[in-house]
Amino acid sequence: MNESLTNQTSLTSGQLIVCHVFVNTTTVASCLHRPLTAHTAAVMRENDESEIIEHHDDEEMEKTRTPRNHAHSFLESVTSSEKDGYRSTQSSHRLLAYSDALISIIATVMILPVAHTKFQDNEELKQSIQALLTTKVAVYLMTFLIVTVAWAAHIRLFQVIQRIDDTLALLNLACMMLITFLPYTFSLMATFPSNTLGILLFCACVMVIGLIQAMIVLYGFSHPFFLSDQIQMSENQAYYKRRILEVIMRVPIMCLFASIFSFIYIQLSYIILALVIFLPYISQCLKWIWSKAIGGLVEDSPDSVPFYTYHPSEPLRKERVEAFSDGVYAIVATLLILDICKDNVPDPSVVKKEFDGKLLVALQEYGPEYLAYFGSFATVGLLWFVHHSLFLYVTKATRLMGLFNTFSLAFVGGLPLAYQLTHEFPRGSLNELEAVQISCVIIFFAGLFQLAMWVTALFTERETLHPYVRYGGREHAFMLAKLSVYPCVALGTFVFSCILSRFSTSIFHMMEIGVPFAFILLRLLVRVVLAAIRWLFCPARNDLDIVPVEEEDSQLPINDIVT
Amino acid sequence: MNESLTNQTSLTSGQLIVCHVFVNTTTVASCLHRPLTAHTAAVMRENDESEIIEHHDDEEMEKTRTPRNHAHSFLESVTSSEKDGYRSTQSSHRLLAYSDALISIIATVMILPVAHTKFQDNEELKQSIQALLTTKVAVYLMTFLIVTVAWAAHIRLFQVIQRIDDTLALLNLACMMLITFLPYTFSLMATFPSNTLGILLFCACVMVIGLIQAMIVLYGFSHPFFLSDQIQMSENQAYYKRRILEVIMRVPIMCLFASIFSFIYIQLSYIILALVIFLPYISQCLKWIWSKAIGGLVEDSPDSVPFYTYHPSEPLRKERVEAFSDGVYAIVATLLILDICKDNVPDPSVVKKEFDGKLLVALQEYGPEYLAYFGSFATVGLLWFVHHSLFLYVTKATRLMGLFNTFSLAFVGGLPLAYQLTHEFPRGSLNELEAVQISCVIIFFAGLFQLAMWVTALFTERETLHPYVRYGGREHAFMLAKLSVYPCVALGTFVFSCILSRFSTSIFHMMEIGVPFAFILLRLLVRVVLAAIRWLFCPARNDLDIVPVEEEDSQLPINDIVT
Repeated sequence: MNESLTNQTSLTSGQLIVCHVFVNTTTVASCLHRPLTAHTAAVMRENDESEIIEHHDDEEMEKTRTPRNHAHSFLESVTSSEKDGYRSTQSSHRLLAYSDALISIIATVMILPVAHTKFQDNEELKQSIQALLTTKVAVYLMTFLIVTVAWAAHIRLFQVIQRIDDTLALLNLACMMLITFLPYTFSLMATFPSNTLGILLFCACVMVIGLIQAMIVLYGFSHPFFLSDQIQMSENQAYYKRRILEVIMRVPIMCLFASIFSFIYIQLSYIILALVIFLPYISQCLKWIWSKAIGGLVEDSPDSVPFYTYHPSEPLRKERVEAFSDGVYAIVATLLILDICKDNVPDPSVVKKEFDGKLLVALQEYGPEYLAYFGSFATVGLLWFVHHSLFLYVTKATRLMGLFNTFSLAFVGGLPLAYQLTHEFPRGSLNELEAVQISCVIIFFAGLFQLAMWVTALFTERETLHPYVRYGGREHAFMLAKLSVYPCVALGTFVFSCILSRFSTSIFHMMEIGVPFAFILLRLLVRVVLAAIRWLFCPARNDLDIVPVEEEDSQLPINDIVT
Repeated sequence: MNESLTNQTSLTSGQLIVCHVFVNTTTVASCLHRPLTAHTAAVMRENDESEIIEHHDDEEMEKTRTPRNHAHSFLESVTSSEKDGYRSTQSSHRLLAYSDALISIIATVMILPVAHTKFQDNEELKQSIQALLTTKVAVYLMTFLIVTVAWAAHIRLFQVIQRIDDTLALLNLACMMLITFLPYTFSLMATFPSNTLGILLFCACVMVIGLIQAMIVLYGFSHPFFLSDQIQMSENQAYYKRRILEVIMRVPIMCLFASIFSFIYIQLSYIILALVIFLPYISQCLKWIWSKAIGGLVEDSPDSVPFYTYHPSEPLRKERVEAFSDGVYAIVATLLILDICKDNVPDPSVVKKEFDGKLLVALQEYGPEYLAYFGSFATVGLLWFVHHSLFLYVTKATRLMGLFNTFSLAFVGGLPLAYQLTHEFPRGSLNELEAVQISCVIIFFAGLFQLAMWVTALFTERETLHPYVRYGGREHAFMLAKLSVYPCVALGTFVFSCILSRFSTSIFHMMEIGVPFAFILLRLLVRVVLAAIRWLFCPARNDLDIVPVEEEDSQLPINDIVT
């Protein structure tokens, strides 16, 4: 009896909140003529619903950030049923931030077993690396990929469920617990590839995760005020529910087949699992390329759920992409100091015996480690800085940008390995050269995929980028310079270390420590380069520096040349 | 020449933004009469300046969250100088989130060397623990404390500097790099307590951090649009600058003395360092108690900076306390799976030799580990859940609440140790009993300090809590129940494990796995208990359940009894 009562009041409260938001929007808009006219127009145009959702979302977040004001002004005037709705629902903001932190750490932390592998110094590094690649690096990369797939599914789920209560929070925690267990099942699979147990455990985890997500969806649709406002207002709730459940249950059902096949022919289950991960990407990429080639054949039905597609242009919530990336950068930067603290504090008895109690002399042995630590921290920090600079001007993150971001982060996660390799080998050995080259490759790809993210964004710049960094925007050239520093420097270091192979490590450390200064000087450098290009290509207009107002107009052709 | 030009335009743009915000606020307020009247009043009353800051802050954050709308409506109409200001300044939101993630991981990660210590099984656990306490646990706790002190200083600094540019972002990264190096200097100090090198390195780090922070302040004050709006509008900018620099340079100067004294008498430098950490707390606590006892003797001068005091009621930014706590909970939850992945994947050759290739049998050896993992994850997850529930209703976090939060988190950080201990020892040994008891103590204090945070908030409930959880609020009893679950359960388990010492581990695991269900049933339980109390103390009014509207009024006396 109690349950049904709550249901009824909740429904009313949900509808009331929607009405309230609408009234607010219109009132504000009619008062502040200039900045909000676009919004009023959007509210009137019922078909442009994404605008409305975004606006509501902001209001929702603001409610939670300033509960004090609401305590004074809002709560005292609301009706009893609205209070009931507020009581049981909470904004999902912090839950999602915590989930992002958990998932990003889980994705990255599997690099530790890779980095802590002891390489045999006497044999060639290449052979060690090959032996390592077969298991540990594969486990790391597969874990990273699977965990980010789970994370993308989590984003999509909580784009539908936008408010939570205690039950949903606990269900989400159960889901997180199983996601953190996935790396272990991968380790089992990699160590015992012909044993069914690993694949069975993995499939069981995925199926339970799917069931929990289905429970979350069912619970959400039975209390509609949890849902996103677009679905709340829609007539087709039953259709949406069925469609979302179909998408969610697709992966668990394929895992069920994989686990059944594992008893018959185990290779087939691995193929099914690979299909589970890659098929949506491949099929949608092909569809997208097809539609681009033919032009507009594949059209969305108006009823389709806008956030349960696998389109490359499907939006991901920008804040969550940022939070996930922050987590990865933070854990990579701090894994390094853990190694330092564990391995580089000498034993007191050793110091007494071998160094006559002189600690400073004993610590000088670790010189390369300190250099490697500061160099690696600077690299991670600056890669974060570039990412941060880019996302300042990104207004919407699409799925394809998210994919490139994942690749970039996977290479960033490999930096502890680079750190471990570059200080482990004696100076001048062939291993050292290869270690430096591997590090360069890791940094190169981490930077290159960041650049790829921006290039992808430029293809749909009207939707995804701030005007300043679009073609011809005033920050365009500067952003290009920032994003290409690391790929260029890594490539340069690679080439130099091949030519001057004896000085490879010194060159590498010089590079790592020198780049921060490059960033400080970058704005100056870009100005100089732009001026030089301007002077070369349009010598008649080289007086532009004196008239900074016209600079904006003149940047368009110049930037096109630069790009 | 260029530099001075930027300066001038920046100043103008900063002032323009302030004016713009003011105009906006007043316009909106005059239109939406009801909900914003309180705000208008606050803007008029110049002395209640915290309201204004909070409001501006929200507008600032909203600007960055919805750049697209601004690109359409706002940017097209602003003047050229405003554009210049926007170009170089950025919201500090993501920089602070990244810093919080870094600092929380650094604070917690030093538990790993503690947890990975191999205990000798044949000797008594107490002796092992005592030997461990002298170095590793001390390093962990000191690191946690020092790092949270640095974090609090970072919060205070970025309450003054509220907008950033590339230079400030890079300076902040340099600061972070040195903070991540602090744990290493502590390890050195703990391993070689009589050597001056550790203390010198630590002091050098702190001094450089102080210098960088001073540079940030100087840079911020030379470009006033970076500053918080309160300081930007103030006449006394020079006074504020001097005062903030004084507070920032206090610690580095004391460290300079400590490093000088370390050559003369090393114990004295340790005392100075301890003073650096604890003196502000102690002196301000004494002052506060004194002012409470005498009553209103200590009054703030109107000119004093409101966020560079050490008052227990000084506000800390709630979002940053949440972000820091999320980081600690996330890293603790994921450190566990790292151990599982590293230690609990058997070697293929061992499985072949000892278990006839039967992986399932081999894995059964690790049964207790899995149980301990799921139990620990559930404990960490639910402690996060309690924290999340509490902070939903916290409207302002004070310094004292932050201190209790730090203590709670320090114990949460000890959970990997509890996990390690509870599955390491053979069943029924005395060590096992002690391991369970240590785990109970860790969980008990983690929960108790969360409860203490709420009790502290209740003392100033009008400022710090949402009306629902104040005395007599409708969620008050439920919040109390949620917060006391873990202290009560841990205490109960401790007592039971003393009485039924043979079943201690089973009881502990039962407890860890049973508590999640308790949370699901909690709302029901609280209702039953409240009904029972009501029935016991006011039997005449036991028909209240039928009339839910009156329930609210009747909860006030009942809650007082419960508390």
